[in-house]
Amino acid sequence: MNSTHVSALAGEFSKIVGSDNVMTSENDRYAYSYDAAVLDSVMPGLVVRPTGSEALGRVVKLCNDNGLPLTVRGAGTNLSGGTIPHLGGVVVLTNGLTCILEINEEDLYAVVEPGVVTATFAQEVARRGLFYPPDPGSQTVSTLGGNVAENAGGLRGLKYGVTKDYVMGMEFWDVGGNLVKSGSRTVKGVTGYNLHGLMVASEGTLGVFDKIILKLIPPPREARSMMAIFTSITAASETVAAIIAAKIVPATLEMMDNFTIRTVDNFRHAGLPTDAAALLLIEVDGHPGQVADEAAQVEAICKQHGARELKVARDAAERNTIWQARRDALPALAKLKPTCVLEDATVPRSKIPAMIEALGEISRKFNLTIGTFGHAGDGNLHPTILTDKRDKEEWGRVEKAVEEIFDRALALGGTLSGEHGIGLAKARFLVKETGRAAFDYSARMKAALDPKNILNPKKMVG
Amino acid sequence: MNSTHVSALAGEFSKIVGSDNVMTSENDRYAYSYDAAVLDSVMPGLVVRPTGSEALGRVVKLCNDNGLPLTVRGAGTNLSGGTIPHLGGVVVLTNGLTCILEINEEDLYAVVEPGVVTATFAQEVARRGLFYPPDPGSQTVSTLGGNVAENAGGLRGLKYGVTKDYVMGMEFWDVGGNLVKSGSRTVKGVTGYNLHGLMVASEGTLGVFDKIILKLIPPPREARSMMAIFTSITAASETVAAIIAAKIVPATLEMMDNFTIRTVDNFRHAGLPTDAAALLLIEVDGHPGQVADEAAQVEAICKQHGARELKVARDAAERNTIWQARRDALPALAKLKPTCVLEDATVPRSKIPAMIEALGEISRKFNLTIGTFGHAGDGNLHPTILTDKRDKEEWGRVEKAVEEIFDRALALGGTLSGEHGIGLAKARFLVKETGRAAFDYSARMKAALDPKNILNPKKMVG
Repeated sequence: MNSTHVSALAGEFSKIVGSDNVMTSENDRYAYSYDAAVLDSVMPGLVVRPTGSEALGRVVKLCNDNGLPLTVRGAGTNLSGGTIPHLGGVVVLTNGLTCILEINEEDLYAVVEPGVVTATFAQEVARRGLFYPPDPGSQTVSTLGGNVAENAGGLRGLKYGVTKDYVMGMEFWDVGGNLVKSGSRTVKGVTGYNLHGLMVASEGTLGVFDKIILKLIPPPREARSMMAIFTSITAASETVAAIIAAKIVPATLEMMDNFTIRTVDNFRHAGLPTDAAALLLIEVDGHPGQVADEAAQVEAICKQHGARELKVARDAAERNTIWQARRDALPALAKLKPTCVLEDATVPRSKIPAMIEALGEISRKFNLTIGTFGHAGDGNLHPTILTDKRDKEEWGRVEKAVEEIFDRALALGGTLSGEHGIGLAKARFLVKETGRAAFDYSARMKAALDPKNILNPKKMVG
Repeated sequence: MNSTHVSALAGEFSKIVGSDNVMTSENDRYAYSYDAAVLDSVMPGLVVRPTGSEALGRVVKLCNDNGLPLTVRGAGTNLSGGTIPHLGGVVVLTNGLTCILEINEEDLYAVVEPGVVTATFAQEVARRGLFYPPDPGSQTVSTLGGNVAENAGGLRGLKYGVTKDYVMGMEFWDVGGNLVKSGSRTVKGVTGYNLHGLMVASEGTLGVFDKIILKLIPPPREARSMMAIFTSITAASETVAAIIAAKIVPATLEMMDNFTIRTVDNFRHAGLPTDAAALLLIEVDGHPGQVADEAAQVEAICKQHGARELKVARDAAERNTIWQARRDALPALAKLKPTCVLEDATVPRSKIPAMIEALGEISRKFNLTIGTFGHAGDGNLHPTILTDKRDKEEWGRVEKAVEEIFDRALALGGTLSGEHGIGLAKARFLVKETGRAAFDYSARMKAALDPKNILNPKKMVG
């Protein structure tokens, strides 16, 4: 992409969004050249910030008319390079589109613009006595548009599902600047293709979100959090499978390995059992009777499977201690080394013990430090490799280790990515999992819907 | 489509599926010329019944190589003409593909071939102590492939969602006879486009299903069924909204109007209150404590909103009486007149009172008998027009009434179809709801994925 060509169009974009909302300086463009993935940054030609729906549509059309690559960016928190403007062109920010247009308490849905921050939305919904469950790790800054584009998960995926399960409908701009509607405000709807379902996890490659209709649910009446302490990681991972096999679906069922426990405790000195081989952090919720029953069952199962101790949170402060430990895992690990590679290959949950074993082998084989934590109940672990990308020899081992993590997950019937997306980071591995036919089918679809290949090019099937 | 051309290929199809599985006689072809929709039948050139995955793929490729229209048919229970072979060609039966390939009790999923009958599958899952909630009215004969192609709903949609919410992944044949994989056996997965989501409700127009991965859940521990008797249908419909507003989500929340009550009672003499203006049939389920609490709350809300009486089922027989009445609604109504037009325009549930009023007006305006029952908790009513298609004058009024039902539902923020699909029956109304841009976007996608337009042509965006 010729950057002179892009900047020559700054005036045209200014006419649409106002000159204050077109950024051309090197500093501004640098700020939008990277995201949370460990990948090289790429400078966009310019950065545009529409503050209204119509302007957003006109920006899309102007890009398409001029063949400019267009990368939509919410908060840039994705971990797969989904918002890196790989061919330059225009970065379109959604932080001028932050209206919660409707929260319907009678019909349990909301309509939002794409730039609404996830946690802000969840709080506003909670204030009305309702519940929006998806809670990705970056929720305090991530946007709902970004969550939909990446199909963001989170800690509550096990019981409540992920972002996909809450998208009832959508309006999005096609590349020609036409507003496409799909889905509805009704609980049921089969009118037309499930285009809003297709948009989920499409990483900005098939359309530009204008409005999203999200499902809301009544909140659980009660919740109870527990921390189970294990002297063997195998025992902990077998416990995860045993809880599900007992037909208990906790709201959250997380695991941390010894390395992560020690790192977190060093980070905040929260009094974690640093000698434990693994922790399970568990929350059951629902009707008070159900919570009492399930908590008792979970406790029994943990003990049967060798838990040394089970701590049940007695109040909000103790509950917060448990979940703060989990929230600290990534920031604490990330502080140890200059580069932190957070993977999220995912397996059927009964294969968690085998995956934990595989990660231990990979760590030894490539002589790398891997801290493992994550959504064990979903089979979605986050093995985190601590390294320094500038150390070329070690980085070579990291790349091989990542590929082996993928291979082991696939061999166990799993998937490359549970919730972080494909983006640039995993695009070259996609065919490994889905096969050539799925890739070709997707590429034909993409070419038909974006003939000039301007929508976030090089991502997914790029 | 030249039927000589089609039958000339019978030998080619025989080589793939065996001559016993290729039907060319007029009787056989007639049997697959119609479905459950009130539409004219169209004879296919021939009917093919593959009995294995590889044969299915070769049949698809042979059709595409020869430009033959291909309509996949499960049990033909859909109500929108989705399985009528509108341009002739080949009907491909799935009743030779009926294997439940896996029920995984540890990881809560199943893998099935498309021809598995819904109820058979649900029973097999229940036998393992698990639960597959989607329960379309035709479940004793309908197939899982058909359910996915139409995104079938049912009585449990309110709490448990519809077929779409249970499709974790899929393998399907593209028109070229290549096997496309999407989704996985893991709870979370964002690897590649959500093609399995796109396949849901696509009515056989984008691919031919080979295997489907379905999510299973633990069953509720207890359930309680109730019948609330109202002397005003407005009061009954306001009660529906009030129950949801109280943050109670029953498993099932159904309504029957007076005409339907009388017709059902005449059909089975079950002792229904034939003088009632409306009935609500309600089931709450879950943990025993939750069931007790919610049942008490539902009872209180019904009484506050003027229910004359509330009958709570005390045993399995009484529970069955309630649900048999609901199951009888359609067959009882259908017996009254030669033609029974079952609509399923859907509105946000708080708009149920307004929709009930609109249906009354439409019935009077066009002087038609309309029995109304359905999934009130989903906003998904089934106004059923009783008529005789041979009476051209009355049929003209029916067509106008149907169009007005659509218009009123859309004006209330609703949708053309909650669960019955677009097929042939509603294809010409599609643009009314989604707009031209969504239609064009869909048509571009369809053209790219099925360049010769052989997959169930004329359906959806046809």
